[in-house]
Amino acid sequence: MEKTLKEIADFIGGRLLGDPHVVIKGLKGITEAEPGDLTFIANRRYLKYLASTRASAVVVSPEIEQANLNLVQVDDPYTAFGRLISWFYPMEKEKPFISPQAYIDPSAMVSPEATVFPGVFIDAEVEVGRGAVIYAGVSIGKGAKIGEDTILHPNVVIYPQCIIGNRVIIHAGAVIGADGFGFAHPGRENIKIPQAGIVQIDDDVEIGANTTIDRATLGRTWIKRGTKIDNLVQIGHNVTVGERAIIVSQVGISGSTRLGNGVILGGQVGIVGHIEIGDGCIVAARSAVHNDVPAGQIIAGAPHMPYKKWLRVTGALSRLPDWMKKITDLTNRLTQVEKFLEDRKK
Amino acid sequence: MEKTLKEIADFIGGRLLGDPHVVIKGLKGITEAEPGDLTFIANRRYLKYLASTRASAVVVSPEIEQANLNLVQVDDPYTAFGRLISWFYPMEKEKPFISPQAYIDPSAMVSPEATVFPGVFIDAEVEVGRGAVIYAGVSIGKGAKIGEDTILHPNVVIYPQCIIGNRVIIHAGAVIGADGFGFAHPGRENIKIPQAGIVQIDDDVEIGANTTIDRATLGRTWIKRGTKIDNLVQIGHNVTVGERAIIVSQVGISGSTRLGNGVILGGQVGIVGHIEIGDGCIVAARSAVHNDVPAGQIIAGAPHMPYKKWLRVTGALSRLPDWMKKITDLTNRLTQVEKFLEDRKK
Amino acid sequence: MEKTLKEIADFIGGRLLGDPHVVIKGLKGITEAEPGDLTFIANRRYLKYLASTRASAVVVSPEIEQANLNLVQVDDPYTAFGRLISWFYPMEKEKPFISPQAYIDPSAMVSPEATVFPGVFIDAEVEVGRGAVIYAGVSIGKGAKIGEDTILHPNVVIYPQCIIGNRVIIHAGAVIGADGFGFAHPGRENIKIPQAGIVQIDDDVEIGANTTIDRATLGRTWIKRGTKIDNLVQIGHNVTVGERAIIVSQVGISGSTRLGNGVILGGQVGIVGHIEIGDGCIVAARSAVHNDVPAGQIIAGAPHMPYKKWLRVTGALSRLPDWMKKITDLTNRLTQVEKFLEDRKK
Repeated sequence: MEKTLKEIADFIGGRLLGDPHVVIKGLKGITEAEPGDLTFIANRRYLKYLASTRASAVVVSPEIEQANLNLVQVDDPYTAFGRLISWFYPMEKEKPFISPQAYIDPSAMVSPEATVFPGVFIDAEVEVGRGAVIYAGVSIGKGAKIGEDTILHPNVVIYPQCIIGNRVIIHAGAVIGADGFGFAHPGRENIKIPQAGIVQIDDDVEIGANTTIDRATLGRTWIKRGTKIDNLVQIGHNVTVGERAIIVSQVGISGSTRLGNGVILGGQVGIVGHIEIGDGCIVAARSAVHNDVPAGQIIAGAPHMPYKKWLRVTGALSRLPDWMKKITDLTNRLTQVEKFLEDRKK
Repeated sequence: MEKTLKEIADFIGGRLLGDPHVVIKGLKGITEAEPGDLTFIANRRYLKYLASTRASAVVVSPEIEQANLNLVQVDDPYTAFGRLISWFYPMEKEKPFISPQAYIDPSAMVSPEATVFPGVFIDAEVEVGRGAVIYAGVSIGKGAKIGEDTILHPNVVIYPQCIIGNRVIIHAGAVIGADGFGFAHPGRENIKIPQAGIVQIDDDVEIGANTTIDRATLGRTWIKRGTKIDNLVQIGHNVTVGERAIIVSQVGISGSTRLGNGVILGGQVGIVGHIEIGDGCIVAARSAVHNDVPAGQIIAGAPHMPYKKWLRVTGALSRLPDWMKKITDLTNRLTQVEKFLEDRKK
Repeated sequence: MEKTLKEIADFIGGRLLGDPHVVIKGLKGITEAEPGDLTFIANRRYLKYLASTRASAVVVSPEIEQANLNLVQVDDPYTAFGRLISWFYPMEKEKPFISPQAYIDPSAMVSPEATVFPGVFIDAEVEVGRGAVIYAGVSIGKGAKIGEDTILHPNVVIYPQCIIGNRVIIHAGAVIGADGFGFAHPGRENIKIPQAGIVQIDDDVEIGANTTIDRATLGRTWIKRGTKIDNLVQIGHNVTVGERAIIVSQVGISGSTRLGNGVILGGQVGIVGHIEIGDGCIVAARSAVHNDVPAGQIIAGAPHMPYKKWLRVTGALSRLPDWMKKITDLTNRLTQVEKFLEDRKK
């Protein structure tokens, strides 16, 4: 595919600075781009590469200018570049077909407009909506429902009765609906509490590879509309995640905790069970959250604290050995003063 | 299913306070329960919902009373409610059948009373006991043994020669017996040390979704009877986990470490290799354990320390900036005193 | 298999102290070894077992002597013992065969000298090299390339277009090439940025069970030659890992970060995106790395700092409550001194 810079600027609604006739043949990252490529800058860290990039043009934010480069200025270069990626490298949509090498229980209702690959297992009373794509090795348990245009990548497992909405993307190896981890008398008898609930995943959610979301003890574990979850995340039984949340890789959320709308959790965060994180909270990577957090807070640390305080604490932490030396010095000086005064008294 | 509160109280051996004739049609969590539902309180955090619950009755511990509610008092509400879940929502047992769409090596010995789903792969000399259920997409390597009434959920992988006991439950995507991570001259030559041992999992163990337990270099990685392991846990080669342990999600245990009986590890704990954690130890979530821990200890922190000390240290940590200000103040005051005395000397 | 100690010493080029005629029938760890077994010591922690081992002989480093034991001294006992494991317990190589129960797209080019198990899915235009072994349940997406003698264990997923080199080992359940986690306006609109790049894995890499390596937004996520990655590791989009790196279990590396050659990351390390870790860096387990690290550094802590400093800081940390008591004492003493001087002034 080839486009002129003019066509590109028009497509993303940007302001073109430079040669409108230059031909763009591909998109690349700023350090890999060659002549003929378009690149972009959405993160200030990469501004340093602007002078030396070999790209034929760069999509940038409005405040960036560089006389000797072809630029397209837009308010939001990351989103604009995302649209260009879809334009230049369109995803091939799978054609509807039902592989005869899939196993589909006679009582399952699979839309003839769905795609089912070889090696898929679909159990009794499952429903699969139109436009859904079920890749090889996926297993869908009894009575589960898969919405329209939803994509289950290879080897995803959906346990019985779980409900997956429309336009959901679940990446390879994710497991939805395994038993929650509930045992009475832990460490002594480990009596299993049956996990009779389900997982409900609403429309437009994306779930990363090898992530696990456990079924509820009763009721549902619930991931609401538009939330995006990265790889290797653990979500415990009866957790509720609000709408449009972002959960980065390797986060763990313990049972019955509730996240509000628009919450952002950095990588490797851990959250205890039975708490509430309010709407719009941002939790820095690696934080350990141990009790309720009101809406709109930015927190960090393990145990967690307000982000700004955490900056001061970790700054102080690295100077700790110096401060201890200061305390020892102070002690010595004070002892001398006391001794001096003691001598005077005599 | 419908039961009177009297029938329920009798079933769990509880003391009924209220109307014995009220009819219970389902079980729910305390905030979701509707009229006709029974709910329970096993965690003090939920006491606050007792006044407002719409449930028709509540299973509680003996010290809880609430005049206007139908209550069933039992010593252990969590276990009692678990029994009620099994009663109200019995798990359908899979009927024995061997799918013709499974691949079973002719030399494998699969009990005719086992259940083998489509898309299962069973290699040479494997044994599968009576009552075992092998779900779709499971792969069992050469010579592995699967005990009686053991359940392997979809896409579980058992590597060759591993031994799985009776009544074991392994959730979807778990990998048992992949090579331990052993390389000589790490970072330079990375010479692979062959991993010729196995994994042995004893009776009544449960293993979570996408958890990985590596085979031993020589001998066995060993999970003993009654231990329960959550999702996304990593257990290294030659580790031994004692009986009735509880290992919460995302824990990592490095090679050759030994855990005693009844050990409880909170979520995201990391344990170095080649150490011993004694019987009955409790390790708080997110701790990093770097050397031997005697039996019965409660520890926390990274690096770990006794739990009570950790409470003091983390308390102190959050006040660190204030203390540093105090040190600066002290230094200023002491300098003034010294100066005053110096002036006097003259 | 039986070998005399003389044959064993000759095989690993070691110096024999003791009876050359003793017959060795198996290899074991030092605490499990019985008469007839050979064992080894490669880690000082196990020296304490030398006096009590029941093994018939021990492979040790040159400085170790024990008069009453048969020893074989070598410079590098771990590597030597690894060679002995391969000798005593040779891995059976799978014979080339293509299962008729695998699905192979007609346009795929699978070497007749490869092995393809039942239940494998190979999509259009895939290439599989000679000697490759593709176990049950593996899914290989459109246009992906699998090199010679590469082993994909059961249920591995290779997404479309990814390139896997020669002699690569990928353990069960690993997912190569799922979408990178890129969303514009996170927490508000979560606009998906298409992930149009690939993953490239070079020769002689090993990847652990259930590890996930995301495809690039554009270009490639790149794991270079000889690198070894443990289980449950997350590697984000556009990351580059240099040659011969060692990445221990449960590490997370965020997008666009670059690791040099020979880097060693301990377990559960987290690394933010868009940074560079220089050649030969060693990062202690559980560290959180938040900005560039020059070559050759040894770092630890969260946030990271030089390893030696971290030792001092964590040492200081555990004494924090004591130091705070000291500050309170100092304050009291100084107040008394000030009061004394104030009284004098009057």
